Amino acid sequence: MALLERHDTGAVAHLTLNAPEKLNALSDAMLAALQAEFDRLRHDTATRAVIIKGAGKVFCAGHDLKEMTAGRQAEDGGKAYFKDLFDRCARMMTTIRSLPQPVIAQAHGIATAAGCQLVASCDMAVAAEGTKFGVNGVNIGLFCSTPMVPLSRNIPRKHAFEMLSTGQFIPAERAEALGLVNRVVPHEQLDTVTQELAETVAAKLGAAVKIGKEAFYNQIEMPLDAAYDYAGDVMVQNMLYRDTAEGIAAFLEKRPPDWQQ
Amino acid sequence: MALLERHDTGAVAHLTLNAPEKLNALSDAMLAALQAEFDRLRHDTATRAVIIKGAGKVFCAGHDLKEMTAGRQAEDGGKAYFKDLFDRCARMMTTIRSLPQPVIAQAHGIATAAGCQLVASCDMAVAAEGTKFGVNGVNIGLFCSTPMVPLSRNIPRKHAFEMLSTGQFIPAERAEALGLVNRVVPHEQLDTVTQELAETVAAKLGAAVKIGKEAFYNQIEMPLDAAYDYAGDVMVQNMLYRDTAEGIAAFLEKRPPDWQQ
Amino acid sequence: MALLERHDTGAVAHLTLNAPEKLNALSDAMLAALQAEFDRLRHDTATRAVIIKGAGKVFCAGHDLKEMTAGRQAEDGGKAYFKDLFDRCARMMTTIRSLPQPVIAQAHGIATAAGCQLVASCDMAVAAEGTKFGVNGVNIGLFCSTPMVPLSRNIPRKHAFEMLSTGQFIPAERAEALGLVNRVVPHEQLDTVTQELAETVAAKLGAAVKIGKEAFYNQIEMPLDAAYDYAGDVMVQNMLYRDTAEGIAAFLEKRPPDWQQ
Repeated sequence: MALLERHDTGAVAHLTLNAPEKLNALSDAMLAALQAEFDRLRHDTATRAVIIKGAGKVFCAGHDLKEMTAGRQAEDGGKAYFKDLFDRCARMMTTIRSLPQPVIAQAHGIATAAGCQLVASCDMAVAAEGTKFGVNGVNIGLFCSTPMVPLSRNIPRKHAFEMLSTGQFIPAERAEALGLVNRVVPHEQLDTVTQELAETVAAKLGAAVKIGKEAFYNQIEMPLDAAYDYAGDVMVQNMLYRDTAEGIAAFLEKRPPDWQQ
Repeated sequence: MALLERHDTGAVAHLTLNAPEKLNALSDAMLAALQAEFDRLRHDTATRAVIIKGAGKVFCAGHDLKEMTAGRQAEDGGKAYFKDLFDRCARMMTTIRSLPQPVIAQAHGIATAAGCQLVASCDMAVAAEGTKFGVNGVNIGLFCSTPMVPLSRNIPRKHAFEMLSTGQFIPAERAEALGLVNRVVPHEQLDTVTQELAETVAAKLGAAVKIGKEAFYNQIEMPLDAAYDYAGDVMVQNMLYRDTAEGIAAFLEKRPPDWQQ
Repeated sequence: MALLERHDTGAVAHLTLNAPEKLNALSDAMLAALQAEFDRLRHDTATRAVIIKGAGKVFCAGHDLKEMTAGRQAEDGGKAYFKDLFDRCARMMTTIRSLPQPVIAQAHGIATAAGCQLVASCDMAVAAEGTKFGVNGVNIGLFCSTPMVPLSRNIPRKHAFEMLSTGQFIPAERAEALGLVNRVVPHEQLDTVTQELAETVAAKLGAAVKIGKEAFYNQIEMPLDAAYDYAGDVMVQNMLYRDTAEGIAAFLEKRPPDWQQ
């Protein structure tokens, strides 16, 4: 079994973090495997949606603390290694937003520290009832400063600050109410519901989802007027796609679209 | 009956999108009528609050797809027309935030695509139970990139992404919990509750609401320190209004203010 | 009794606004007392968490309107005084975010106008059931433009706009759902729960909380990529703390950390 399993169902790629004995820690090897898979997916036009899940009892427990501790043996006490590690981790997380496909986190058990960051970094997330979310590095003296980057862009700031400074976990239902996950479902429905969400998205016109996803994250960081200028141009581009013309015509004529996608 | 009906009750202007057979689509004519009415309202000091509602079964179903499709007949395939259309639409939407009066969307039935954008662009919104909100352009191959500009500034990003990429509708109660609407009321109370909200706002000192609304949207896009510098100056200006001095004096003397507004 | 009482329990500083006959108004003297105390706390390494509460029936009713009205007697109608007042107030509010310790508002009764701003400016907030939150300056002709700076960074914008333009109060449960407070508890548990939250935070490694809190507010105003660059550097710095190395080692060895903090 590979460290990162991939199997596809139709246009949906399922990536499974597969180091259950390490609680699917984002080790150097796991980060590299995720990055490599994302780099492949960027050019994989047959894949229209991606699901990230974890093997075993939890989704992901964050960085590999043993590996990080071993890094301290270097002459600089690990400084260069840590810098490189957090750079690689941030690159992997931000690659998710730059992929043309929507990426869905399928969380169960525990998602903590960089594991919670991974959930926050995905475009959408589905969680099993009973899943706990935390950014608990503060408990061992390491404030979750990189996980807080996407977390504080997902949930209201007082609630983010509480999670970060207390290290306490929140249940899935709370995560949903705050905006960290889209849906909470019974554990036995987790696979099905996530798969259905992925298939719903995968059935859309890929070119429209691609340009829309890119625009979503670009415009959100702009002042309103600049966001409208930019989004207006995106709409014009989208309108001129052959398949969009066909989609609109089909809708007006009350027939299914004949998409070439 | 005009395409955009206006009738006033006291200091409240009621604008009714009046093309029920087209589900109150934001056609070229409807956009122009809204823009013209807003341009009049900008200088209408007797009007202190504005309500936007829809005639017939729905609030607004977005752009006029037939008109857009007709635009494709141009030599450039509609490119110039679409660019101009989205510019006009964005101008109308952002004019709402630049009006001196608070603008309230009164939604019922369906608010979708640019209709949902209109709700998101208003300062406040009241919805009837049973109202459905969506940005479902993706279903016909046109990602709702311009509607997402105000939508993603109203609700948490994972929920916005889900609406945009799945095209699925959310019920009014969900829209309220996410921040897209302020209140959900039984359909038979929709007119009354919206009117009361408008009258509450209309009874305030107009100059204070005007300077406050302008400051609200300006400061929200600034870093904290710049926002405070700016908002402090706004407070000083507001303090120096004759009617504000009177309002504060009246409060301290436990009598109603004698406002000249 | 001082205008601002301080008593400490272990590493937790309790600051009590102590002008109950003035509803703990943020008078010139109260602002100065808070600023002076915060300036001391900045260098007080023994204090790891701060609680702000109010004596008497309410938390804080905002600025001192009598004092502000008296300011109008100046030749310039109060302009210079008001400018200075709002500058001092903003400096006090933003000092909270620049303190190394987490600051928790403990709200009861009423928190309105600059009193609501104080809650919004704290890192976290706990409220007693029955507490009412408002920014009701608009009722006397003074739009709460400075309170809206932190308020609009705590809660969704349509709900913030409603509070600001209607002057209406929201109950504690609503404030919690919107993100203005972290927890709502029965009044008789208010002291205990807030104290427990403060002690939880105070027990963490102070250096990690300090660098994390600073990073929290810095990164939240950056575009995503810049936020990651910055937060990555913060993580590296944090990893190199002696006590963090010890905290991680202790965790891996399943023993309590021997922190020098």
